[in-house]
Amino acid sequence: MNVAIIGASGYTGLELIKILINHPKFDITYIANSTGNENVQDLHPCLKNVLNVDVQKADAKEVSKVADLAFLALPHKTSMFFAKELLDLNVKVVDLSADYRLELEAYEKHYCPHEDKEHINGAVYGLPEYYKESIKNTNLVANPGCYPTASLLALLPFIDYIESGSQIFIDAKSGVSGAGKKLSEASHFANLNENIHAYNPFKHRHMPEIEEKVKLLKEKEFQINFVPHLIPVTRGMLVSVFATLKEDIDVQKVLEESYKNSKFIRIRENVVDIKSTAGTNFCDIFVAKNGKALFVNSSIDNLLRGASSQAVVNANLMCGFEEDEGIPKIAYVP
Amino acid sequence: MNVAIIGASGYTGLELIKILINHPKFDITYIANSTGNENVQDLHPCLKNVLNVDVQKADAKEVSKVADLAFLALPHKTSMFFAKELLDLNVKVVDLSADYRLELEAYEKHYCPHEDKEHINGAVYGLPEYYKESIKNTNLVANPGCYPTASLLALLPFIDYIESGSQIFIDAKSGVSGAGKKLSEASHFANLNENIHAYNPFKHRHMPEIEEKVKLLKEKEFQINFVPHLIPVTRGMLVSVFATLKEDIDVQKVLEESYKNSKFIRIRENVVDIKSTAGTNFCDIFVAKNGKALFVNSSIDNLLRGASSQAVVNANLMCGFEEDEGIPKIAYVP
Amino acid sequence: MNVAIIGASGYTGLELIKILINHPKFDITYIANSTGNENVQDLHPCLKNVLNVDVQKADAKEVSKVADLAFLALPHKTSMFFAKELLDLNVKVVDLSADYRLELEAYEKHYCPHEDKEHINGAVYGLPEYYKESIKNTNLVANPGCYPTASLLALLPFIDYIESGSQIFIDAKSGVSGAGKKLSEASHFANLNENIHAYNPFKHRHMPEIEEKVKLLKEKEFQINFVPHLIPVTRGMLVSVFATLKEDIDVQKVLEESYKNSKFIRIRENVVDIKSTAGTNFCDIFVAKNGKALFVNSSIDNLLRGASSQAVVNANLMCGFEEDEGIPKIAYVP
Amino acid sequence: MNVAIIGASGYTGLELIKILINHPKFDITYIANSTGNENVQDLHPCLKNVLNVDVQKADAKEVSKVADLAFLALPHKTSMFFAKELLDLNVKVVDLSADYRLELEAYEKHYCPHEDKEHINGAVYGLPEYYKESIKNTNLVANPGCYPTASLLALLPFIDYIESGSQIFIDAKSGVSGAGKKLSEASHFANLNENIHAYNPFKHRHMPEIEEKVKLLKEKEFQINFVPHLIPVTRGMLVSVFATLKEDIDVQKVLEESYKNSKFIRIRENVVDIKSTAGTNFCDIFVAKNGKALFVNSSIDNLLRGASSQAVVNANLMCGFEEDEGIPKIAYVP
Repeated sequence: MNVAIIGASGYTGLELIKILINHPKFDITYIANSTGNENVQDLHPCLKNVLNVDVQKADAKEVSKVADLAFLALPHKTSMFFAKELLDLNVKVVDLSADYRLELEAYEKHYCPHEDKEHINGAVYGLPEYYKESIKNTNLVANPGCYPTASLLALLPFIDYIESGSQIFIDAKSGVSGAGKKLSEASHFANLNENIHAYNPFKHRHMPEIEEKVKLLKEKEFQINFVPHLIPVTRGMLVSVFATLKEDIDVQKVLEESYKNSKFIRIRENVVDIKSTAGTNFCDIFVAKNGKALFVNSSIDNLLRGASSQAVVNANLMCGFEEDEGIPKIAYVP
Repeated sequence: MNVAIIGASGYTGLELIKILINHPKFDITYIANSTGNENVQDLHPCLKNVLNVDVQKADAKEVSKVADLAFLALPHKTSMFFAKELLDLNVKVVDLSADYRLELEAYEKHYCPHEDKEHINGAVYGLPEYYKESIKNTNLVANPGCYPTASLLALLPFIDYIESGSQIFIDAKSGVSGAGKKLSEASHFANLNENIHAYNPFKHRHMPEIEEKVKLLKEKEFQINFVPHLIPVTRGMLVSVFATLKEDIDVQKVLEESYKNSKFIRIRENVVDIKSTAGTNFCDIFVAKNGKALFVNSSIDNLLRGASSQAVVNANLMCGFEEDEGIPKIAYVP
Repeated sequence: MNVAIIGASGYTGLELIKILINHPKFDITYIANSTGNENVQDLHPCLKNVLNVDVQKADAKEVSKVADLAFLALPHKTSMFFAKELLDLNVKVVDLSADYRLELEAYEKHYCPHEDKEHINGAVYGLPEYYKESIKNTNLVANPGCYPTASLLALLPFIDYIESGSQIFIDAKSGVSGAGKKLSEASHFANLNENIHAYNPFKHRHMPEIEEKVKLLKEKEFQINFVPHLIPVTRGMLVSVFATLKEDIDVQKVLEESYKNSKFIRIRENVVDIKSTAGTNFCDIFVAKNGKALFVNSSIDNLLRGASSQAVVNANLMCGFEEDEGIPKIAYVP
Repeated sequence: MNVAIIGASGYTGLELIKILINHPKFDITYIANSTGNENVQDLHPCLKNVLNVDVQKADAKEVSKVADLAFLALPHKTSMFFAKELLDLNVKVVDLSADYRLELEAYEKHYCPHEDKEHINGAVYGLPEYYKESIKNTNLVANPGCYPTASLLALLPFIDYIESGSQIFIDAKSGVSGAGKKLSEASHFANLNENIHAYNPFKHRHMPEIEEKVKLLKEKEFQINFVPHLIPVTRGMLVSVFATLKEDIDVQKVLEESYKNSKFIRIRENVVDIKSTAGTNFCDIFVAKNGKALFVNSSIDNLLRGASSQAVVNANLMCGFEEDEGIPKIAYVP
């Protein structure tokens, strides 16, 4: 099946290219960014001797001529315009931006006015462990944010056991690639190296995304108090969920039951680290308790499970392929 | 005033040497480790052209002949034997081990049988912001652990406002120097680099230390749920305290009031990082809330405020000097 | 074709497993280390949900029953005993140790007495760009050291143009994975982080390996002055060759001519870095001159092109497959 | 003695402030940058509770009213205008830019037209080990570049023994703080982390600075072939000098003789690293030979010995103080 990658300049675009080059069922027939007119090797010198194609200036009509499905690795607000046009041309869309992740009202509160009201409500949230059947039957998947992916996979199995009205705290740590290629003070080597700090505590836009999905999936309302941190690594994400249990439960068993059929969830008996998932689509999870205090710890590759490989899993499902077809499982260790 | 450093081989021993070399009131007259018989430059090549003295095999009687105060940078269980002997010889002691940090019963539960029951109850916990007057009047200071230092300085101002019976969570991140010079899988470069992971979640021995001090100082019992992490940096410690407030309070004001007279607490309006405190005795603190959810974030240098410079502050107070005499304030930035 | 991996515990063993899992022509039928009796996932937790097989206690006879070719990722001196036994049992061998890299006399001078004099002279040096035809026709390949691989690929094209009798200098930089999993002061995170230093200057055992191959391939004797450095990265190797040219030549053209048919050499117009080759079998090369002064700069992944992926390229050639069958080309960037 | 710091915003400005705060003979009476009008703590948050003064908009006349000596930590081309004005107002100048480092002709070839022809020829090159007496008697010191400092200190003792007409190669490695605070692709964390690469090979502007000083000091002309590298550390610089000796000499003895009276040169018997000098004004040097091949290895802190602490050493000498008065000697180890 022929696929297009729109937004090839950034890290998630590059990861999509790298996965799809070796994918047994998908062929990349179109790669675009906002300017076009250069070889993909000029954008990404690591692709020399690997892929030799021209990058186009993104154009939905051209996509519809050569591809059945498009991955959109575009900025928020830009993506919705392309998605709308592609859907109207009968091209399936996996959107890696935030544009279809939230319900309309929440989106407009936390981002901006939405320009594709026709499709936003029909979009399926692309967290395969919880929305697999819907993903198989949709033309539009909203690929989850990296923090919500790791947070929800850790938190959802335990929602029914958490004390009603209690506070849920999430302390999350992300490698700097999550902030993209853009130069900034925070990603200047001399500032981040030998450093760690929180940012946007209690104010990050992934906080309402987590709250909304908990509510929709579990019909429970919790205040999710989310504090992300920037850590001095390039890729990897570790999420610590802290909550108060209603009663003493066998947390290990709850976790194992929840994911017994999940190919990409690995339950660990010892603490998880980010090296073991970097380079893969796996989410590793560990759980512990201290009386009523609950600690759930999850690890993903922020660019893969947190973006590009999860996008390809979603595309696999939308196209009737096996979930793990062509999906990276080999970690970068050491 | 003449001082001795017992336990000069490790990182905290080295930091003591580095601070005391330039201290205007203390003279180092004795440096020892468990073997003796070498120049301090062989132990620490960075001291070449800086300090040229022999390291002794530790002997309490010899210490008492040449020093009025001794810093013990020894392993737990070893330290109490030296401390006892030195105190009996009228040498003041600042003990950097855990041996006098807890009340007897708690110590024996979490560590081992105690061999100096005579002095353990009279030891003063060396957190100057909360025990200054007692420190001035004691001959034995138990220097706090690094995690308890950063955790207590963040948590204590808010204890009176936290909902009774609610869970307090601490997500702490430490540079690898906190684990000392000993080789281990966890500190192997290829394992820690580009990585982060929790260790001993809910089981670290600094957890009861924090709980006990909260109880003693504030007469309140809380379950402190403590999860430390190892991060890929050499020095620095960041602590995130999460708790549930009883009611809406002005958290910034509470913090400012608590530390208005503290020379080594810096209240930050934006998030704290570990670079700004590395190399110093400062503890930087930031606070935020989300309704009833509280987030207090503190940063220290784990080897300095978390060990050696705090030890020298305590020695300053015990000897009647100004608290900040000779204490490092210049961060390693960049 | 069925293959065995002997020596699965180390980094190169793990990399062999990771490559061969996805190799279209080779099937892993035997994995062994010195102890056996555990699942490969206990050795390498990153393989959970990826490979689920038992690790054997290494036994040559067992290998010969289930495999046609064996990769030996064993320590120097241990490897020759296994190689000898396997060759006598008609199993092809790719030896990743130093045991067959040098001629007998040089080996015994720089390592130890050799116990397989029968095979050492027939071994082929597995640098495919220079020994391809011999590799295709041998049963025993000595896989080159990481430093010699990067150094020879940079140096060999220019040997004929270097002033006779002049000194050749090589300043090489390696990530710490090259030193293996063994704990050491040098690989302690607190020692290597924020650091860089040379080791064994002019005395590293890869120096005679480079000199010998230059002499054998080019019939020219040069003193190669080799200084390796340890850098604070996990994987990657950068080699700088400095030499004096006989006369003004078009260095770019010489380089391009030398490697015009090489799939795994990428000639770069700007300086090379180690990120673009990490995760791949590529060797990137850049050349510059300043009058008669020559600078050739090469980059490889020390564990892949410097060990495991080059070993699989050699196995491909020995078995009549395409050189690049199943060989990693996708860099870890970012 | 009262001193001014002009150019307080960058890393070298910050290091000057940090040294001078604790200097027993100098008082900072004026701190300026190009904009003025802010507290120094807003420029450098790490100075909170350490220094509380306003930063001025740089003005030479104001300087002359309050200071006897000025440190200029300004960009090349900007610095010469200030230096000229200050010298005319009888203020001594230590210029950290390149503006007075070269002879006029070389400066204009490698930089731009010079606007202070009156003073450039009288400027003294501030490498104290080689120009101490001149520094004591001048009003204008050109503080050397970081690469030339480390390179010349390693190379100069051996110049007389190097084969005439042979090539000298320098492979230098610098932490990223050498490139300053400015954001760039090269200093983006995701690009530099886990990476290393050369830049400007044979074309860096510090190359003619090294060649010129060798010629002026030793009356020998050599082609210095200089290749700098960017390494994934914040501070520290390691320089490897490779050269061909005329004859067999005792290199260790030559080195020891050269620096027997130098307080800030430490000759090491084993290889040098950058951790042992980071935070100090020391230059550590190691030497080895292989027949006629020479390897000299030097290590400095690029921001201190390579800029700010060397500037204060020069100021000490210009003002008649002891060379090491107030100069940092305590390394950041670990």
